Amino acid sequence: MTAPHASPAASETGDPLLLTPGPLTTSRTVKAAMVHDWGSRDANFIEINRSVLARLVEIANGGKDWVTVPMQGSGTFAVEAMLTTFVPRSGEVLLLINGAYGKRAKRILEIAGRKVVVHETAEDAPPDLAKVEEILKTTPSITHLFTVHCETTAGILNPIAKLGALAAKYGKSYLVDSMSAFGAIALDVRAMNIDAVAASSNKCIEGVPGLGFVICRRDALARTQGNATTLVLDLHDQAVNYEKTSQYRFTPPTHVIVAFHQALQEFDAEGGVAGRGGRYRNNCKVLLEGMRSLGFKPLLADELQAPIIVTFHMPDDPRFVFQTFYDKLKACGFVIYPGKLTVADSFRVGCIGRIGEKEIRAAIAAIAGVLKEMGIDGRVAQAA
Amino acid sequence: MTAPHASPAASETGDPLLLTPGPLTTSRTVKAAMVHDWGSRDANFIEINRSVLARLVEIANGGKDWVTVPMQGSGTFAVEAMLTTFVPRSGEVLLLINGAYGKRAKRILEIAGRKVVVHETAEDAPPDLAKVEEILKTTPSITHLFTVHCETTAGILNPIAKLGALAAKYGKSYLVDSMSAFGAIALDVRAMNIDAVAASSNKCIEGVPGLGFVICRRDALARTQGNATTLVLDLHDQAVNYEKTSQYRFTPPTHVIVAFHQALQEFDAEGGVAGRGGRYRNNCKVLLEGMRSLGFKPLLADELQAPIIVTFHMPDDPRFVFQTFYDKLKACGFVIYPGKLTVADSFRVGCIGRIGEKEIRAAIAAIAGVLKEMGIDGRVAQAA
Repeated sequence: MTAPHASPAASETGDPLLLTPGPLTTSRTVKAAMVHDWGSRDANFIEINRSVLARLVEIANGGKDWVTVPMQGSGTFAVEAMLTTFVPRSGEVLLLINGAYGKRAKRILEIAGRKVVVHETAEDAPPDLAKVEEILKTTPSITHLFTVHCETTAGILNPIAKLGALAAKYGKSYLVDSMSAFGAIALDVRAMNIDAVAASSNKCIEGVPGLGFVICRRDALARTQGNATTLVLDLHDQAVNYEKTSQYRFTPPTHVIVAFHQALQEFDAEGGVAGRGGRYRNNCKVLLEGMRSLGFKPLLADELQAPIIVTFHMPDDPRFVFQTFYDKLKACGFVIYPGKLTVADSFRVGCIGRIGEKEIRAAIAAIAGVLKEMGIDGRVAQAA
Repeated sequence: MTAPHASPAASETGDPLLLTPGPLTTSRTVKAAMVHDWGSRDANFIEINRSVLARLVEIANGGKDWVTVPMQGSGTFAVEAMLTTFVPRSGEVLLLINGAYGKRAKRILEIAGRKVVVHETAEDAPPDLAKVEEILKTTPSITHLFTVHCETTAGILNPIAKLGALAAKYGKSYLVDSMSAFGAIALDVRAMNIDAVAASSNKCIEGVPGLGFVICRRDALARTQGNATTLVLDLHDQAVNYEKTSQYRFTPPTHVIVAFHQALQEFDAEGGVAGRGGRYRNNCKVLLEGMRSLGFKPLLADELQAPIIVTFHMPDDPRFVFQTFYDKLKACGFVIYPGKLTVADSFRVGCIGRIGEKEIRAAIAAIAGVLKEMGIDGRVAQAA
């Protein structure tokens, strides 16, 4: 197997740099951990898995009353497992939506036949806390509150601590999708009154894709028996079986888990959430400065921007053709991401993965070069 | 990351040989394919994924009217996706059970609220075809027939072609779990009247775990819209979205898929089903001869034994302590598998993965040595 792309700018393994929200660029050592086979019932593997699950609880600032329940698949598998396990058939969820992932949670709950109440704001606007409180106050049938920590649709950071305070005030169970933020943005499940938070192996912890997980308050999880609508996505059953056997109910993605274990060691070596988040915040700052200097305009106000992925308005310049821009950048070794907005034509550039200031600066230089090749010398034209 | 275990007998990467039904020993080159990062929307990755899905249809002898729908997770995720997508809420399934995987399918259908009729035989007995025909004839409300191709509980090969003929005769949709047999035992979805068959990346194709798939007759799949009980396990939605975008709906396990692509190339180089199945049949033969020479007694009659995994009765000799036997064998570099039988105390030894006659003979020699260490020189005592 050779590198998928020979490129001027490249990762430690010669691959293009993935400036995307995942799968993203991981370290050579994380990937190298996969060049072994492990029996899923093997004591060494069981210990690796145990230490991964325990470390994830610590990152979320959970204590002994918290447990990580792994879920094979992708992040969405973990989110669907969390929603269908925690929300009983008689439950009703207040869903805060400001992007595709909130909408996806709505679809999951509707398929499961759970009642939902929606508070939707624009993709570039956080939820209206006064409105959320009013809904919680006036709708006693609501049992759960759900939000997305960082909505990668626009890259917006939602106020999960303030929402957690509202959930606690009105006695609601609080469920969070922290997929793209977990490990880079501080999370305190106890202080934030969170009952369950879902994330995955291949975002800010910089593992490879294939494993989701849900960090659960033990006593909240204990009350979910019989809620799930499937066998494989039943977190209660997964947790009960794990406590008994130290094993997964169904074949775990052994190589992905061993890579995740290595990724967690590298995460710790970087200083955990503070170190990882610090690098990403700097990546984001350098990216925004560089892109602004080329005339690109970010969608979000700086105070709403999570240091995960940045959405830029599509330039108005008729010489700017996105597919050409994307392809030429890829030829330079940088893979960016199409937009997912419904409100505006856009594209996205990620700040996460095994990339630092040097790589972001190289990406900005490549973007400047590509613009020149497209006949745009200096700054792109941008309305508003 | 060093090898998990330094061992006298070892795989190409120095790891213990996994004589298990999976995760199993894979080639060095399959694992090395994972030492790159791939964007999930990248054209190269999309082409790799396309070729994997197309090749799987060919292995099942499907033509253009067949399609492979991938499912993140494990094999059980694919089985639950198949059952909950293909069986409508008004459906009724005749389940043939002779082991844990048939029972698991029953649990999946019961959680999904689907009606089931069960024909259960002992773990060492195939379904009674006359009885199956009688049930099909006298129960017109049955819409689907489900069976497990090779039940790894005992290692038994079920008569999927004869069952397919009965399904066709009585106009039932036929669903097969071919998890541990796919790629090693001939499968002809057209001749066998199969509507859908589930398998995974890490059995006889010798990839790593993390991806399941269901090979579906297109017109049968087209009629399943709205059946699924979840978002992530909805094969219809997964397939419709893939046709439109050439992409997964949710992050695919990119590294696992690239390894699977490499594994398929090595599968083809070995001569496909004939070559792979031939090696496993020889592994099984050498294993049975060697174990019989040491006094071990297989559970199954030879004509019922699939060349996948062999169940042996636990010896009666009081000097034979299974955990000691297991640990000492592991120290010699061979990982075997505990039994899963309810009918008899047993253990299992797998014939699949990147192992051949040389490794099986080495395992037999190691077993003879371990018996000696346990004070059993010659043959173990075995009742019946």
